[in-house]
Amino acid sequence: MPDTSLLETFPSPATSFPFVIEHTSEEFTSVCPKTGHPDFADITLRYQPAPNGTCVELKSLKLYYQSFRNEGIFYEAVTHSIRDHLVDLMNPAWLQIISNWKGRGGIRSVIRADFGDVPPAYLGR
Amino acid sequence: MPDTSLLETFPSPATSFPFVIEHTSEEFTSVCPKTGHPDFADITLRYQPAPNGTCVELKSLKLYYQSFRNEGIFYEAVTHSIRDHLVDLMNPAWLQIISNWKGRGGIRSVIRADFGDVPPAYLGR
Amino acid sequence: MPDTSLLETFPSPATSFPFVIEHTSEEFTSVCPKTGHPDFADITLRYQPAPNGTCVELKSLKLYYQSFRNEGIFYEAVTHSIRDHLVDLMNPAWLQIISNWKGRGGIRSVIRADFGDVPPAYLGR
Amino acid sequence: MPDTSLLETFPSPATSFPFVIEHTSEEFTSVCPKTGHPDFADITLRYQPAPNGTCVELKSLKLYYQSFRNEGIFYEAVTHSIRDHLVDLMNPAWLQIISNWKGRGGIRSVIRADFGDVPPAYLGR
Amino acid sequence: MPDTSLLETFPSPATSFPFVIEHTSEEFTSVCPKTGHPDFADITLRYQPAPNGTCVELKSLKLYYQSFRNEGIFYEAVTHSIRDHLVDLMNPAWLQIISNWKGRGGIRSVIRADFGDVPPAYLGR
Amino acid sequence: MPDTSLLETFPSPATSFPFVIEHTSEEFTSVCPKTGHPDFADITLRYQPAPNGTCVELKSLKLYYQSFRNEGIFYEAVTHSIRDHLVDLMNPAWLQIISNWKGRGGIRSVIRADFGDVPPAYLGR
Amino acid sequence: MPDTSLLETFPSPATSFPFVIEHTSEEFTSVCPKTGHPDFADITLRYQPAPNGTCVELKSLKLYYQSFRNEGIFYEAVTHSIRDHLVDLMNPAWLQIISNWKGRGGIRSVIRADFGDVPPAYLGR
Amino acid sequence: MPDTSLLETFPSPATSFPFVIEHTSEEFTSVCPKTGHPDFADITLRYQPAPNGTCVELKSLKLYYQSFRNEGIFYEAVTHSIRDHLVDLMNPAWLQIISNWKGRGGIRSVIRADFGDVPPAYLGR
Amino acid sequence: MPDTSLLETFPSPATSFPFVIEHTSEEFTSVCPKTGHPDFADITLRYQPAPNGTCVELKSLKLYYQSFRNEGIFYEAVTHSIRDHLVDLMNPAWLQIISNWKGRGGIRSVIRADFGDVPPAYLGR
Amino acid sequence: MPDTSLLETFPSPATSFPFVIEHTSEEFTSVCPKTGHPDFADITLRYQPAPNGTCVELKSLKLYYQSFRNEGIFYEAVTHSIRDHLVDLMNPAWLQIISNWKGRGGIRSVIRADFGDVPPAYLGR
Repeated sequence: MPDTSLLETFPSPATSFPFVIEHTSEEFTSVCPKTGHPDFADITLRYQPAPNGTCVELKSLKLYYQSFRNEGIFYEAVTHSIRDHLVDLMNPAWLQIISNWKGRGGIRSVIRADFGDVPPAYLGR
Repeated sequence: MPDTSLLETFPSPATSFPFVIEHTSEEFTSVCPKTGHPDFADITLRYQPAPNGTCVELKSLKLYYQSFRNEGIFYEAVTHSIRDHLVDLMNPAWLQIISNWKGRGGIRSVIRADFGDVPPAYLGR
Repeated sequence: MPDTSLLETFPSPATSFPFVIEHTSEEFTSVCPKTGHPDFADITLRYQPAPNGTCVELKSLKLYYQSFRNEGIFYEAVTHSIRDHLVDLMNPAWLQIISNWKGRGGIRSVIRADFGDVPPAYLGR
Repeated sequence: MPDTSLLETFPSPATSFPFVIEHTSEEFTSVCPKTGHPDFADITLRYQPAPNGTCVELKSLKLYYQSFRNEGIFYEAVTHSIRDHLVDLMNPAWLQIISNWKGRGGIRSVIRADFGDVPPAYLGR
Repeated sequence: MPDTSLLETFPSPATSFPFVIEHTSEEFTSVCPKTGHPDFADITLRYQPAPNGTCVELKSLKLYYQSFRNEGIFYEAVTHSIRDHLVDLMNPAWLQIISNWKGRGGIRSVIRADFGDVPPAYLGR
Repeated sequence: MPDTSLLETFPSPATSFPFVIEHTSEEFTSVCPKTGHPDFADITLRYQPAPNGTCVELKSLKLYYQSFRNEGIFYEAVTHSIRDHLVDLMNPAWLQIISNWKGRGGIRSVIRADFGDVPPAYLGR
Repeated sequence: MPDTSLLETFPSPATSFPFVIEHTSEEFTSVCPKTGHPDFADITLRYQPAPNGTCVELKSLKLYYQSFRNEGIFYEAVTHSIRDHLVDLMNPAWLQIISNWKGRGGIRSVIRADFGDVPPAYLGR
Repeated sequence: MPDTSLLETFPSPATSFPFVIEHTSEEFTSVCPKTGHPDFADITLRYQPAPNGTCVELKSLKLYYQSFRNEGIFYEAVTHSIRDHLVDLMNPAWLQIISNWKGRGGIRSVIRADFGDVPPAYLGR
Repeated sequence: MPDTSLLETFPSPATSFPFVIEHTSEEFTSVCPKTGHPDFADITLRYQPAPNGTCVELKSLKLYYQSFRNEGIFYEAVTHSIRDHLVDLMNPAWLQIISNWKGRGGIRSVIRADFGDVPPAYLGR
Repeated sequence: MPDTSLLETFPSPATSFPFVIEHTSEEFTSVCPKTGHPDFADITLRYQPAPNGTCVELKSLKLYYQSFRNEGIFYEAVTHSIRDHLVDLMNPAWLQIISNWKGRGGIRSVIRADFGDVPPAYLGR
């Protein structure tokens, strides 16, 4: 199961704003619960830490993503779960999760889940 | 004929918004009703499920697209039909269909049909 | 001379909006009236048909563009003429012509002419 | 010295608006006044002619750009000078100059200078 | 330690606005304070000088960036420090720092720190 | 069934050699005989006509390719069949068929079938 | 453990030669035996069936590749094992395995293992 | 009709060999003799002048290519004619003509015609 | 100083040949001995292990490359040193070092140093 | 006039072979002797130093290239002159000059001049 206990934070250095952080993992994989075949995605996390808030530590984020490796879970639920876990962890000003899935049956998919007041410049990107 | 009975849905996992889903099929083909020659397109479906709404199931979407294979139908009508069928199926918060056609006589074409209150960030993309 | 009698229309299938159509010809050529040398451009036509309006037929558009082949005419006038001819033909909700010219003397050029209330998402694209 | 006497105009064909013209020269070169080494840039001119206004003639623009070839002048001053010269020449509705410089010491630079009420769709492009 | 004494300025040539300057260094490197391994980034500085304000001199900017070479410092702190140092140096109308880091453990990162009233056209770019 | 009667030839204009002709169709589609799902490929035909030999006529080649549209046939057999049909038609000096298939289950495939003494410069391309 | 019992074959349709088949999987993943972290690669299989020989069936190849998912195995051994397994399965005229690994610590790797008399045109590709 | 009287030469500066010259025109257009529609190609001329031989002058080559503009002529004949005209003009050590045609009915075409002893390194390029 | 004591090996798994290994580091940096400015390169190591020979361990290769970080050394000497060090370490069948340097003063450089009987397919790549 | 006195050498570090050096300048400019307009090219120098031979110093090469800036000289002569000057300077094992010129009148040009026994792997590249 996805293991949120792997996630760690550190205090944000930002004393003024906007301060926007974006991490793109090109090595995400989980398993389709219907067919048992593996799924592959690029996952982008984009967020603005809260004032005096925290940032997710990069290596802990990698290990957390790896905990989906043998999990049977749909595209939409992957995206929604990561959003919820990271919002719980950091309580950021705003946050986006964008999952970009390799093709299945000739169809590529992108799922976007947002939290908070995402500035218009980041919508749809 | 395009067969909407092939389309299936599942409940959206989204409990908060925006939650935007995008599927791009790179293997759409139909037939030109005027010349009888095949047409080829990439078809992008982009939508936000209604609160407590449904999502289109990916394999059923593929089979539905395949049902256009030997249908004589113009670019504009393909785009409009898919829009209407998927709005009927899911009644989403908003929805876009973008069909991007390979060249005919040295002219490439893109047709966009929207439903509902599409956020400005997704217009023209 | 550019021959607008070649242009044909068909009724728009759109019963709801926005419905945006884009045709890009990669094979436009005319002649520079100053030097007599040929000019080459990609021409993009983008428009929204009027409610219960018409759409330009694709093959007739190709033949119309071909009628500029031996015409001596400047970049700016090509763009403006096509805009006027197609607005006269369809009386659309809005329309754009974007001509993108291959380099002359190391300078590439793009000319944009709009008609009506073009949505901001399409400006500058 | 940059020679503005080379610049010529012709009457704009535009009778309606917006009408936007863009010329990109990929062959601009001047000299760094500090080191004496040559600098190389792509220069984009983008503008909307005034109603009943004028357009800059393309070959004259090329010759004007060539007159910077052996001029010792900084990136910022090149950009600002071209802006001023072309505003003086055409008095357009609005105008932009964007100079995009090849790397020096591993640093690439882009300088943008605007005149008048540039539509938001063209800012930052 | 990052050495701000290396930074030099010159008077901005801009007498009208907007006037936007962008420098992208493709050769930034610092050291991860946790692992001791080197980190590599592209750093973009984008700003509008204040009226009658100053611009940072390009070679001095290069030397300042080089002073991070053997510094143990996190991505977020690099970005925030450069922002603060350059705001102190120039007191510009507005300023952005965008650091784009090569992958670590399959994750690429982009950090953006802004100062002042950045026009919407430059947000998220 | 693939219909070789659609294929037409015309006399080669070549009076000296090498003379090499290459046609790439980006719109080939057939059906997987196992799953019933459509397959999509780019098909490249490359050949040297025999001295005083013939060339395949382009439009007839298009119609012949279209005759595979609803044929249940494997990648390898498509490639081999086209090779045999075109060798029978033209009896060329040499000939290559290269079929490049869109992904199935995350796997892209390329099949090459040659006839005659293909020059080394064309092998593996 | 990699499961060669998943692999299936079918008779080659080739009655003449060269006949070269290439399958590229973009979704290969195994586990580093030293660190326990996942590794990701594109794997290309390229071969010429023996006269009257066999071809590997595409879906069985996919399932065989998936059986490496949780295997702790080095890059070099993955490449060598796949080579041996497929040579045993098909006894082809010649065969190549090319594994192209995503970066680790800023280093990308490609491993090539050949069997039999690979034509020069395919070496180093 | 193609007008070879437009072609001019100048003495080759080469005193030692190999010395290879390549000119690629991206603005070639002729007319299909069957349909009357325009065809568009990139034409590459590559040759080695004879010792104490001549080179084709670049502007004269451009004017010669322009003389095909309203000529009804097939792809293969265009390629063969240019080969013959330029061999007659320069009598080079060797020469290649490669015509690369934009798509017709979804098929792109490349025709290559050689003269003399073309080095293997240039075959198939 | 470059520290060869960091380099480690493991036994090659190859029992048959050719078996070719390629590692490309995109994060190499050293210092110009003349100017004191940092230099940046991609370094490709390509080799075939000797029969019953050894392979360089990937992490040790990374640490060895990092030991050049503050070394004053020219492009040519970097390339030659790495070649000599890795030949001494592994005594491979053959080996190549290709260093690809970012631009200095508008000039990009590539240096290639080979050892042993490199197959023609790998020369010049 | 091109100033060969600017060129400097240093002893080659190579004690074994092949050792191949390649420098590509993206900032070469000269003047067309016929029209007086500037020409722009990428110039690639590729060579193998003689045993116990010399290498051209990079900064001196840059200054030598800059000395063509206001020289009226044809493409072919530029290429031939640089070849001769650098062969005289270094007396290398072999050497290539490849000049790649920006378009004039829609025609791009590449000129190659070789000296000595260039390995086949480098011909035509």
